[in-house]
Amino acid sequence: MNERERARRPGGRSARVGAQVHQAVTDLINERGYGNFTVGDVAARAGVADSSIYRRWGSLEALLSDVALTRLNAQSPMPDTGSLAGDLRTYAAQVAREITGPDGLALLRLAFALSGTGEQGVQARDAIRGERTRQLQSMLDRARERGEDAPDAFEVLDHIMAPMYIRVLFGMGLTPDYVDGLVDRVL
Amino acid sequence: MNERERARRPGGRSARVGAQVHQAVTDLINERGYGNFTVGDVAARAGVADSSIYRRWGSLEALLSDVALTRLNAQSPMPDTGSLAGDLRTYAAQVAREITGPDGLALLRLAFALSGTGEQGVQARDAIRGERTRQLQSMLDRARERGEDAPDAFEVLDHIMAPMYIRVLFGMGLTPDYVDGLVDRVL
Repeated sequence: MNERERARRPGGRSARVGAQVHQAVTDLINERGYGNFTVGDVAARAGVADSSIYRRWGSLEALLSDVALTRLNAQSPMPDTGSLAGDLRTYAAQVAREITGPDGLALLRLAFALSGTGEQGVQARDAIRGERTRQLQSMLDRARERGEDAPDAFEVLDHIMAPMYIRVLFGMGLTPDYVDGLVDRVL
Repeated sequence: MNERERARRPGGRSARVGAQVHQAVTDLINERGYGNFTVGDVAARAGVADSSIYRRWGSLEALLSDVALTRLNAQSPMPDTGSLAGDLRTYAAQVAREITGPDGLALLRLAFALSGTGEQGVQARDAIRGERTRQLQSMLDRARERGEDAPDAFEVLDHIMAPMYIRVLFGMGLTPDYVDGLVDRVL
């Protein structure tokens, strides 16, 4: 079995190393905050060689982006409830739970801090934004295919996601009624 | 003249030291990013003693919050144009210019990073949020006193400020038409 096959095999050594490295990053973000650790720190914590991390991810910024995206996709998969109102309510509630959860604020800060770390950080941030926009767009496209009158993805970003992000960043908390109100306003 | 009188005298030594320290903080944020310098670094850059900074500001976080608020108030004073539409358009345009300007993103990141630095950082962030909310509230109160139908301050935060902040944090830029559109939507 060559390296590429190993990387594809779920549950293999590659997947185990990936999980260890992701956990090490999450722990270091929680303990030290973003910007206060290196690839060497992650490698030491995960029990792998620095070179394994560089070979697989290329840079600390790309690794951080991968961790953020993996967590976003696990905690907030794009819902498919059969109606736009159901999808948007479910998605908004998931994002609210995620960003108010234990590592939520640290991950939110990470996504925004990435852009301050040069070209690789900007690429990593754009990868996160691009992937989430693509997922959101396909949810809205499904609604249009059902004949529903769907807003565009920017409308959802500006008037549902942005207020939630900013309120959490400013330490203001989110109630379910508040989150539903944001969705109703856009619908 | 005692220490307190000196501190109050505009243009005196105290004002000069304040300006030097603020400039040193702005330079260090731009060069190193938030979180990568200490009170000692600021003192060395400004040519003052560490103890002068601790005596006047108490902590690095309180100093950073003071710098952020001073810049916000200088670059985005609350307008008083005589109409709510004029005030909100002017204010939104000022904020857009400020956060897309040379140090804008660094300062925006600073405001959000502060809350990740423990109790003093949270207090500093809340001081920024509290002061801006108070200023915005008095702008809206003036409109109501003139008999205009004004939105509440949260509505302005959620649907004018938050989308601009998030778009800049995600590297998306702001056009005057986009900013006016956010204001029109709230009005």
